[in-house]
Amino acid sequence: MQIVIERTTTPKPKPDLDKLGFGRVFTDHMFMMDYNNEAGWHNPRIRPYGPMELDPSTAVFHYAQAVFEGMKAFRTADGRILLFRPRQNMSRLNKSNARMVIPLIDEAFCLEAIKQLVRLDQDWIPSALGMSLYIRPFIIATDPVLGVRRSSTYRFITILSPVGAYYEQGISPISIHVESEYVRAVRGGTGFAKAAGNYGGSLKAQEEAHQEGHSQVLWLDGIERRYVEEVGAMNVFFRIGDEMITPELGDSILPGITRDSVIHLLRHWGITVTERKLAIDELFQAYEEGKLLEALGSGTAAAISPIGKLAWKGRTITIGDGKIGEWSQKLYDTLTGIQTGRIRDEWGWTVEL
Amino acid sequence: MQIVIERTTTPKPKPDLDKLGFGRVFTDHMFMMDYNNEAGWHNPRIRPYGPMELDPSTAVFHYAQAVFEGMKAFRTADGRILLFRPRQNMSRLNKSNARMVIPLIDEAFCLEAIKQLVRLDQDWIPSALGMSLYIRPFIIATDPVLGVRRSSTYRFITILSPVGAYYEQGISPISIHVESEYVRAVRGGTGFAKAAGNYGGSLKAQEEAHQEGHSQVLWLDGIERRYVEEVGAMNVFFRIGDEMITPELGDSILPGITRDSVIHLLRHWGITVTERKLAIDELFQAYEEGKLLEALGSGTAAAISPIGKLAWKGRTITIGDGKIGEWSQKLYDTLTGIQTGRIRDEWGWTVEL
Repeated sequence: MQIVIERTTTPKPKPDLDKLGFGRVFTDHMFMMDYNNEAGWHNPRIRPYGPMELDPSTAVFHYAQAVFEGMKAFRTADGRILLFRPRQNMSRLNKSNARMVIPLIDEAFCLEAIKQLVRLDQDWIPSALGMSLYIRPFIIATDPVLGVRRSSTYRFITILSPVGAYYEQGISPISIHVESEYVRAVRGGTGFAKAAGNYGGSLKAQEEAHQEGHSQVLWLDGIERRYVEEVGAMNVFFRIGDEMITPELGDSILPGITRDSVIHLLRHWGITVTERKLAIDELFQAYEEGKLLEALGSGTAAAISPIGKLAWKGRTITIGDGKIGEWSQKLYDTLTGIQTGRIRDEWGWTVEL
Repeated sequence: MQIVIERTTTPKPKPDLDKLGFGRVFTDHMFMMDYNNEAGWHNPRIRPYGPMELDPSTAVFHYAQAVFEGMKAFRTADGRILLFRPRQNMSRLNKSNARMVIPLIDEAFCLEAIKQLVRLDQDWIPSALGMSLYIRPFIIATDPVLGVRRSSTYRFITILSPVGAYYEQGISPISIHVESEYVRAVRGGTGFAKAAGNYGGSLKAQEEAHQEGHSQVLWLDGIERRYVEEVGAMNVFFRIGDEMITPELGDSILPGITRDSVIHLLRHWGITVTERKLAIDELFQAYEEGKLLEALGSGTAAAISPIGKLAWKGRTITIGDGKIGEWSQKLYDTLTGIQTGRIRDEWGWTVEL
C-alpha cells in the first residue's frame, strides 16, 4: 500500500521543552488507516494532526473495543534517530488485537508508516538528555452501531508527542500503595493486552493511592490477592539478596518490552533473574530478614522507576534506605544509554531511522 | 441549568420499521453537556444529531474512562409515552461514575434532560408491539492528554434509537455456551459498573461462542470459574423445582433493573426467589435430577430471553424441551405489558412523559 502524505500548511511552533510534561503536546502530523470487511486495512495516509469526526454512536465510546501501544524515538548526540525495539511493539499490538477481536495489522507495514511519520516530524524530537518523542499507535472500533458485537470497521491512528524527562530531578524512588481492594486483571481477562479498558479500570485505585500520598499502586493477583503482578502501568522487579525476581507472565500481566530488556541485561551481567509467583507476604518477610534490597518498575514512559516505599495493610517499609539501588541505577543508565546511542547496542534493539 | 435547544432544520425521514435492527438508526436530536473542574457539568444542550469532533489524543480512545446506560421509551396503545424505571438508570449511572472516577451527575436534571429529548423526538417512538425507543446516555473522558490519570474534562451525551422487536418471530429460547476460558469480571474489578471496558473485553468469548453456533456465553466467576454470573450482557435466572435462583449481586455482577423487576414480580406471585451463589455443576446436577425447569436472561434489550440449551465441557443440555417456560413467558408478558401500558403498573415503575 502507498501511504498518501498531505503535509500541513500551518506548522505549529515548537513547544517550550521545560514545560512538555507527558503526552500533552502533539506534532504536526498523524498517520491513519481504516478497516472494513471488504477492503481490509486501507487508505493509509499521513495528514496534518487534527480532530477526528465521529458519530456519537461510534462503538469505541460505548464498548471500548480499542488497543494501543507506546514506544519512543530518541535523538542521539550525533543527530541520528533511534527507535527502541519497535518490532516488539507491533507484535504485541497484534496480540492485543487478537484478544480484543480487532483485525490484525501488517506489522512491517505499520512500522514503516510510523517511521515515515517520525521522519516527517523529526524536528519535534527533543535532543536534551532524558527527552524523547513518544509514539502512540492505537486502534479504535468505529461502527456507528450500539449492538454489543465486534465492530466491522476500525481506524488505526498514530500520533507523536515530544515528552520531557520523566523525572525532572533525575530518577528518584517512589512510594507505592499495595492494593488490597481493587483488582486490575484476572486470569481469563484482558490484562496481558494493551486494551483501553484495563487502564480506565485502574484509575480508581490510583486516585485513592494518590490521596494517601503514594505515587502508584502495586497490583496483586485477582484470585488470591496475594501475588504481586504490576506496579501502576509498569512491570515490577524485586531484588532479594543476589537474585532479581519478577512475576511470571500470564494472561493478567502485560509482557513489557522494557521488562524483557531488563531481564536480558541482568542475565548478561551474570545476575540470576527468576520469573515466578511472588507473594506480598514473602516480600515483607524478605524485608524483615534484611534481604529486600531493591524494587523497581519498568516501562516505556520512565524506563526504570525505583520503588522506595511499600505500604501494605497500615505498614510502610522503606527499601534500600529510600535510595536508588545499585542494579536499578545501572539498568536505568544502560537502558537509556542504549536508547540514545551513548552505549553500544549489543542486542540489535535500536532501529535507526 | 437551562437546556438550550437547537432544532434540526433538516429532519431525517423515518426509517422502515421492518428493518430497524438494534441501535443502527438514530433520531434527529441528541443531548449533550460538558464537565470541567471549574464549571462542573455545564452547557446542557439539545442539538441536531451529528458527529463530534475529538482530538485523536482524547482520553476515552486510549484508556476507556467511559460509562453508559440503556433504557427505553414505549408508546402505549392510547398514544402515551412511558419510560421504565428511569430513575434507577440514573442512579446506576452514578454508581458507574464513582467506580470509574467520573464526576457524578445530577440524576434528576439528567432525567429531565432525557425527557425533553424524548419529547422533542417523540415521533420516532415506534408504536408497533415489541418496538420502542432505545435511550443511550453515556459519558466519555475528553482530556486531550496521554498520561494515564483521571481526565479533568468529560462529555455526557444521550442519543436515541428506535429499535425493532428483539425477537422478530416472538421470543424463542437461545443456545448458550458456558464459558470456561474467558472471564468477564472479578471481585475488585469493574463488573458491577456499566463501564465500556467490560463490554469490549467480552467480545472474544462471544465471537467464539457464535462460531460454535451459540447465541451467547454464560459467564462464570473469575476466581473459581464455577459460579454462574451473567449471560451475555444480561442477568441470569434458573428455575430449579419451584424455586427461582439468580446469582447474588457482588462487584462482578451488574445490578440489572430488569433483574430487580423480575425478582419483584416473581415474589409478588408467591414464588420463592433466592439470590445466592449457584455453581455450574449444581445446575447440571439439577438437570440430571429433572429439576432444572427453566432458564432465562433478563435485560433492557430483550426484557426476557429464555435459554433453551446450555453447552458445557462438550455436553449440551436442553432445558424445558427447548420451549419457553411458564414463568419465562409470564415474566415477558407482564414486563412488556407494564412497559407498554397494557397491564396496570402496580409498582410505580413507569414514568409518563
